[in-house]
Amino acid sequence: MPEQRFKCFCSYDGTAFKGWQSQLGGGTLQDAIEDRLFKIFGKKIRVHASGRTDAGVHALEQVFHFDAEWRHPARSLMLALKSGLPEGLVLSRVVKADGGFHARYSAVGKRYAYNIFEGDAPAHLARYFWSVGDRRLDIEKMNEAASKLLGEHDFTAFSANRGGGSKDNPVKTLYKLSVRRRGKKVRIETEGSGYMYKMVRLIAGALFDVGTGRLAPEEIGEILESKSRSNKFQAAPAKGLFLERVFYKRPSPRSK
Amino acid sequence: MPEQRFKCFCSYDGTAFKGWQSQLGGGTLQDAIEDRLFKIFGKKIRVHASGRTDAGVHALEQVFHFDAEWRHPARSLMLALKSGLPEGLVLSRVVKADGGFHARYSAVGKRYAYNIFEGDAPAHLARYFWSVGDRRLDIEKMNEAASKLLGEHDFTAFSANRGGGSKDNPVKTLYKLSVRRRGKKVRIETEGSGYMYKMVRLIAGALFDVGTGRLAPEEIGEILESKSRSNKFQAAPAKGLFLERVFYKRPSPRSK
Repeated sequence: MPEQRFKCFCSYDGTAFKGWQSQLGGGTLQDAIEDRLFKIFGKKIRVHASGRTDAGVHALEQVFHFDAEWRHPARSLMLALKSGLPEGLVLSRVVKADGGFHARYSAVGKRYAYNIFEGDAPAHLARYFWSVGDRRLDIEKMNEAASKLLGEHDFTAFSANRGGGSKDNPVKTLYKLSVRRRGKKVRIETEGSGYMYKMVRLIAGALFDVGTGRLAPEEIGEILESKSRSNKFQAAPAKGLFLERVFYKRPSPRSK
Repeated sequence: MPEQRFKCFCSYDGTAFKGWQSQLGGGTLQDAIEDRLFKIFGKKIRVHASGRTDAGVHALEQVFHFDAEWRHPARSLMLALKSGLPEGLVLSRVVKADGGFHARYSAVGKRYAYNIFEGDAPAHLARYFWSVGDRRLDIEKMNEAASKLLGEHDFTAFSANRGGGSKDNPVKTLYKLSVRRRGKKVRIETEGSGYMYKMVRLIAGALFDVGTGRLAPEEIGEILESKSRSNKFQAAPAKGLFLERVFYKRPSPRSK
C-alpha cells in the first residue's frame, strides 16, 4: 500500500513543552506527536513542521506533515491522532496533501504576534503575555521604529546564534510589522517571508525599548544597518510569542 | 497597634486550584493566600472572599478582605503578598478599607461570564472555554430563553445542593443575562444580585440546550416556574466560567 502525505494543523500552549524539535528525553511537541503516531502505526513516523519554535513559544496555528499508509478517510486519522495528545496540544485539522507539499519548504511566509501587557496580566493571560509592570509604551514611536524594518533586509542584527553551526540566509522580507494597543494590551504583529533564529523576540525586545524611551526610533535603523548583534537590547521572553499562521502559495487552479 | 482592614483584588486560573474555600490538605486559593499571610505576619490571618468559587472556575476579579497590623503603606503589603503566590494566582490591588467593609456582605452584585467555543478551542483558550465540538448554537433562541430568567425570581430550579445543609435564599435578581457570538466564541454574560450554588453553570447548561434545539425557549420559563431541580439539563463544565466583577455600593460622598 502506497504512502500518503498528510498536512496537519495544530495549536499549542508552549508553557508545558520543551519547544518543537525532538530531543533526547522527550518533552517536545514533535515527540508528543511522533509518540502518538507510533501508537497508531506501530512504527516510527517522522513529522516535519513549518519550522521549530522555542521552549515556551505558543502556536495558534502550526503546520506539519508526515507520510503514512492509511486506507481510511483523513478525518478518521485525525480523530485517532488527536485523542491521545497531551494537554496543551490541540490538533485542529488533518488533510491529504500532494507528495510535492512540504510543511517547511513549501511555506512562503509566516505571521507571528508578540503580546505585551502593561501592568500585571490577569491570571488567565499571564502565560501568554509579557507583563511589563508599570511601564507605559509609546505606540507611535514603536511604529516609527517598526517602519525601518519593513521590506527586504539583512537581519543579522536581529538574530541569535542557534548553535550547531548551520547558517541561515540572513536576508528576509517583512511585509508587515505593526504595533497596536487595546487597553493595556500591546500587540506586535509581523508577516514575513521567513525569520532568523529569535528574530521576532529580538525585534519585540528592541521595539519595547523604543516604547519605553530607552532607544530612539532612528537607532533601530542604525542597528539594522550595522548587520551585527548589538547588546543594546534583549530578546523579549518566549511566553509572549505566538506563531499565528503559515502561508503557502495558493496553487493556481489551471496548473497541475 | 490597631488592626487595619485591607480590601484586595485578585485574578486566578482555576485549573490549578481546588476551588476558593480552604480545605484539609490545602490546594485552594484561600489556602494559598493565607499561607502567604502567615509567612508575612507569623500568624494565621483569615481572609474573606466575596463568595467561594468551585474547583476549575476562574476569576478575572475576585475581591477578599482581611485584618492585620501593618504600619507601612498598603502598596508595600501588596508587594510582600504578591511575590510569593503560586502560579495562576495574581494579586492586582490592595487598598485600605473601612472596618465596616465586608467582601461578602457588602457586595450588592456580581458579574459572571460563561465561555463556549464551537469546535475545539485552540490550545491557549482550551482551559477557559467549554469546547462543544461540531454544534452550532442558535444565539437568538438562547437570548429568547435568557429573557425569561431576567428580573427577580425564585431560582431553585437552577440551583444544586451544596451539602452541609446551609440554606441560601433562592430569590435572586438578574439584571442582565445576554448571549453574544464573536466568530466561534459564544459568551453568556450575567449580572445579578447574587447566585445560588452552581446557578450560573446550570443556566449556561440550559441555554446551551436551547442553542442546540434540545430545549425550547419556553421550557426555560416552565423550568423556572417549577421551582424544582429538573434533570432535563446539566450544569456546564467549570472551566468555561469566570467571576468577572464584584459590585459594591458606591459610598455617597456626603454620608457620615
